[in-house]
Amino acid sequence: MLVKLPVEEFSRVLGSNSPAPGGGSVAALSGALGANLVSMVCSLSIGKKDYESFDNELAEALELAQTLSEGLLKRVDLDAEAFNSVMAAFKMTKQTEEEKKSRSEAIQAGFKEAVQSPLGIARECLDVLRLANKLLGKSNTNALSDLGVASLQAYAGLEGAIMNVKINIPSIKDTNFVSETSLEVSALLEEGTRVGNNIYQYVSENIT
Amino acid sequence: MLVKLPVEEFSRVLGSNSPAPGGGSVAALSGALGANLVSMVCSLSIGKKDYESFDNELAEALELAQTLSEGLLKRVDLDAEAFNSVMAAFKMTKQTEEEKKSRSEAIQAGFKEAVQSPLGIARECLDVLRLANKLLGKSNTNALSDLGVASLQAYAGLEGAIMNVKINIPSIKDTNFVSETSLEVSALLEEGTRVGNNIYQYVSENIT
Repeated sequence: MLVKLPVEEFSRVLGSNSPAPGGGSVAALSGALGANLVSMVCSLSIGKKDYESFDNELAEALELAQTLSEGLLKRVDLDAEAFNSVMAAFKMTKQTEEEKKSRSEAIQAGFKEAVQSPLGIARECLDVLRLANKLLGKSNTNALSDLGVASLQAYAGLEGAIMNVKINIPSIKDTNFVSETSLEVSALLEEGTRVGNNIYQYVSENIT
Repeated sequence: MLVKLPVEEFSRVLGSNSPAPGGGSVAALSGALGANLVSMVCSLSIGKKDYESFDNELAEALELAQTLSEGLLKRVDLDAEAFNSVMAAFKMTKQTEEEKKSRSEAIQAGFKEAVQSPLGIARECLDVLRLANKLLGKSNTNALSDLGVASLQAYAGLEGAIMNVKINIPSIKDTNFVSETSLEVSALLEEGTRVGNNIYQYVSENIT
């Protein structure tokens, strides 16, 4: 498992000439790091006098941030596996008509997974952004830069995941799947940009 | 060392109630992941017929990307240490006038380091962006989304590092240091935004 590797070893494997893990796994990790920073900000706020009226909300946010981090860390490995199944499908034999059909179906199934995987990453990165947004004005101001970095990481994860959706979409023949995915991509980007900008503006205005 | 921890353990430590590692370390890691993806894109392009006229440039870029990744990974730990020295300075005794003076000097030195550390991260993230920008049109188009994610990670690292500069700047009394730093921050952000937008636009136009 990739997430069992030491950070510096993960970094080395990522930089190697193997296409997986690649951008999709990095997008998932970026979202997870964002969720971890949200957890830290909650932990540095809970039980502090200035924020005691938000203690319940902060405790709920902490739990959700931990769940999001765990989910996104799983997706670091899942995304590399999704890429590898496409590659495996391309290597299937194609001598007979039946083999050609099976191979073609496996390739299509592989590409759908290679779209659904980053789409799932993008959804969860948006959840991290929504959560960070809720904590504005309700969490430790000493950790405001951490909340800002959480948002930047989640937004980079969202955008990065969507680049991975877009590079695989043209290979998919199922037009319903393509149009539904494109609609969702637009909605995710629209909300992500709006929420990300809101956090960025709040942090910029309140950080100095 | 933080980068010796397994990814999932680093993630857990980051999410804990300790303020270090925090956003600065994440910004450094984000830049390192960007540099790793640049390495991967170079490795997936070198020796390929379509890009053979760029082989020398790609080999140089690969080497620089690896150096940037190593430097930024070191900064993951250095940034946590910079934060801890500020905290240590605050805990110094302040009974006598001399102790007060020493403590105050140590706090100022600590805050300068807590500004210079993320400033260094921001500079190296900009170097990753510049490098990714040079590879547009000269690297494997199958890895275009990876080059896009590299840029997003480096840009998030740059912006995140600058948030860490900005949260510490108000504590510094040396006005020359403050004005020089503010000028550099503006220059880094200006170029980073310009280069990041250029890569984003290229990737968006060529990905589908």
